[in-house]
Amino acid sequence: MRKLLVANRGEIAVRVIRAARELDVRTVAVCSETDTEALHVRMADEHVVIGPAPAARSYLDADAVVAAAVRLRADAVHPGYGFLSERAAFAQQVIDAGMTFVGPSPEAIHLMGDKALARSTAARAGVPTVPGSDGPLTDVDSALETAGHVGYPIAVKAAAGGGGRGIRIVRSPAELREALPLAQAEAKAAFGSGEVYLERFVHNARHIEVQVFGDGERFVHLGERDCSLQRRRQKVVEEACAPNIPAQVRQDMTNAAVSLAAAASYSGAGTVEFLYDSARQEFFFIEMNTRIQVEHPVTEMVTGRDLVREQLTVAAGTPLSFTQEQVEPRGHALEFRLNAEDPAAGFMPSPGTITGMRMPGGPFVRIDSGCEQGSQVSPFYDSLIAKLIVWGDTREAALARARRALDEIEVRGVATTAPFLRSLVDLPEFAEADYHTTFLESWMAGRASDRDAAGRAA
Amino acid sequence: MRKLLVANRGEIAVRVIRAARELDVRTVAVCSETDTEALHVRMADEHVVIGPAPAARSYLDADAVVAAAVRLRADAVHPGYGFLSERAAFAQQVIDAGMTFVGPSPEAIHLMGDKALARSTAARAGVPTVPGSDGPLTDVDSALETAGHVGYPIAVKAAAGGGGRGIRIVRSPAELREALPLAQAEAKAAFGSGEVYLERFVHNARHIEVQVFGDGERFVHLGERDCSLQRRRQKVVEEACAPNIPAQVRQDMTNAAVSLAAAASYSGAGTVEFLYDSARQEFFFIEMNTRIQVEHPVTEMVTGRDLVREQLTVAAGTPLSFTQEQVEPRGHALEFRLNAEDPAAGFMPSPGTITGMRMPGGPFVRIDSGCEQGSQVSPFYDSLIAKLIVWGDTREAALARARRALDEIEVRGVATTAPFLRSLVDLPEFAEADYHTTFLESWMAGRASDRDAAGRAA
Repeated sequence: MRKLLVANRGEIAVRVIRAARELDVRTVAVCSETDTEALHVRMADEHVVIGPAPAARSYLDADAVVAAAVRLRADAVHPGYGFLSERAAFAQQVIDAGMTFVGPSPEAIHLMGDKALARSTAARAGVPTVPGSDGPLTDVDSALETAGHVGYPIAVKAAAGGGGRGIRIVRSPAELREALPLAQAEAKAAFGSGEVYLERFVHNARHIEVQVFGDGERFVHLGERDCSLQRRRQKVVEEACAPNIPAQVRQDMTNAAVSLAAAASYSGAGTVEFLYDSARQEFFFIEMNTRIQVEHPVTEMVTGRDLVREQLTVAAGTPLSFTQEQVEPRGHALEFRLNAEDPAAGFMPSPGTITGMRMPGGPFVRIDSGCEQGSQVSPFYDSLIAKLIVWGDTREAALARARRALDEIEVRGVATTAPFLRSLVDLPEFAEADYHTTFLESWMAGRASDRDAAGRAA
Repeated sequence: MRKLLVANRGEIAVRVIRAARELDVRTVAVCSETDTEALHVRMADEHVVIGPAPAARSYLDADAVVAAAVRLRADAVHPGYGFLSERAAFAQQVIDAGMTFVGPSPEAIHLMGDKALARSTAARAGVPTVPGSDGPLTDVDSALETAGHVGYPIAVKAAAGGGGRGIRIVRSPAELREALPLAQAEAKAAFGSGEVYLERFVHNARHIEVQVFGDGERFVHLGERDCSLQRRRQKVVEEACAPNIPAQVRQDMTNAAVSLAAAASYSGAGTVEFLYDSARQEFFFIEMNTRIQVEHPVTEMVTGRDLVREQLTVAAGTPLSFTQEQVEPRGHALEFRLNAEDPAAGFMPSPGTITGMRMPGGPFVRIDSGCEQGSQVSPFYDSLIAKLIVWGDTREAALARARRALDEIEVRGVATTAPFLRSLVDLPEFAEADYHTTFLESWMAGRASDRDAAGRAA
């Protein structure tokens, strides 16, 4: 691999460019017309403008990306996360153009991208799945029958969805009867396929995911992450390792993830997501993401492994650089997603120019950002401006470090979620890791109704 | 400990404030009249201006520092490095005022601060010392006799010196006869004591130092650092662990360092410095620094231990938080000192306003800095503006990371040593760790004479 095109923007493009640099691989950035001054463009050796600001006409335009890669004689393409990263057809296009796709095979992407197919693959590999339909639902009657066996409440999910999108919760046969055609129509509109399936809805579940890696022959895990602190199904804080998990559960879960990777003859970085029912100590497969994850740094901080470098070397044909026995997690890491959103105004996006930006530093603090002073935060893209990752020898030390690091953040010109993130760290539920995926929304709703009550009283 | 006065400035003051924050200890910064807008002042909870810019009238004014601490009701004082950090009388003053001195006892500071006394203490503790005089030299005749036993070349050293200052090399009895009275007069002028001693001058030695820690009862080491890349006896790059050291030598050296700490009933962080003769695989005690070291972050990166936090907790009376067995170095770390000096103009200091500052980020990169955009680099103080620390799972990976991180540095408004540091990383001698304390000067002299030759040829 001598020249890598990075088919993404923002912090993950910067992250990939850094890894490529360290391997002496030249880099090509792609950008939209509004991103020509962006940090990832400034850091790459070369860049190509591939279209106007809307992602559909630039970062999501597979033809334009592949054409740019061919024109600049790149010999590999890294898709980052989001955008084209989980499109099997894009991976195939890259390969057909004679280049290396940094990721698993198009077949593996397809297998895991179709949620019903992924579910049946998991079941065959002995990975526990949430009780539910074994394939797409065809008619209302069979859906009602399956739902009767599974038990309410039930989640109706788009087969082509993922990341928390395309899900409806129903609590009775009547609700299911009503929801099914709507869910199918929505899935068709949103994902191009109307196939939906159903699963038991697990109450107060934690979201725990296992980082896996394969080179097509050997398959390993790098421990798990807890990503239960979510807002509108988007992760807000992630941590490694997951706190308060019995050793046996951790072992079973990581083994299950490796089995699934092996079943898919997986190559590269992947994440196997589970729901964890802490009351019953049961876990269920949700989906596998066939790309690098936003929260990969917490795994890097505890394992000392550079996952993006590993993606590049494995894609270039080098076997995995470590064995399962050589993965030894140390300490605890937390990642906070800093968004240009105004927590005081319902998390409204706050686009604009970053006129000042001081990020925390010092011991065991890491910043991954695609922004710097002078950067434009565009309304066209997601509002992530930086990830703050802290490490501590214990979870308590990591939390203390998170407090002081969040206090050091100074961003001028756009509003950020820093004050919100700072308030999270002081929650007793966070300190005790006593939370689940709906905790944050409930807490916020509570704060809002407290404010309303205070407002009425005033 | 509830309120800590940080008797320092720049990056180490920021470092100490961060550690205090993480322990929920309030902080008081001291500053000179030119430092009122400095980052360490902005980051502390409170600050006191203690005098005019020259350090002798502010940061070195022990009375002013202690008075400030008493007035703001601090219950502890952290001296950082340099300035008052190794003055036994200052530590005693802090204690006499009823506060905790974050460091070893005044007795231990005195014991190690007097180089002749340190040397005899080391010898008694079974730590190898460079062959030399067993105490201060009195007259020329006995100096000549001792020198005859030790063998030339010989280093004549001021007993109260340290850090490479107050040393003369003599190559013959005639040179010694001439140098002795001069060295005594210089030592008297520079350090207030005219006592000098002599040691064998070790050719092509490496500078290797061992980080030790004690709580007065237990004494441990945290591995060693190589600090052989020096310019004018100032360290430029430091690394942990030291490369190319036989396991037996490493074990003997770290054991020797722990013996010395125990002999001094040491409490807090200390560094035992050795000369290492790699040809003969012999090491000799040079001196012990009774404070935190500029290069402590490389040890933190490989051990995962927060040395400044440990200084604070041990000073507060908590036993050491780890045992020797729990110190497990992982990977390799390098530190680069970024100075506001112009390498193209003989490393002339480059004071001024930092009008732009982009520091590297991403995986396994750490920045410790006392500056930010808008900071003044003052001609009154040392020119260190940031320390770049990189970690890699191997030394090779750390070097690759150093290359890309150094390339990311952008500082505007003042000249920096970044281009010089970047050129060092590509030296084959650096890559192979085939260097000693005079290597860098020789290489630079070689470059200079190449330039002269090119100039004459043109």
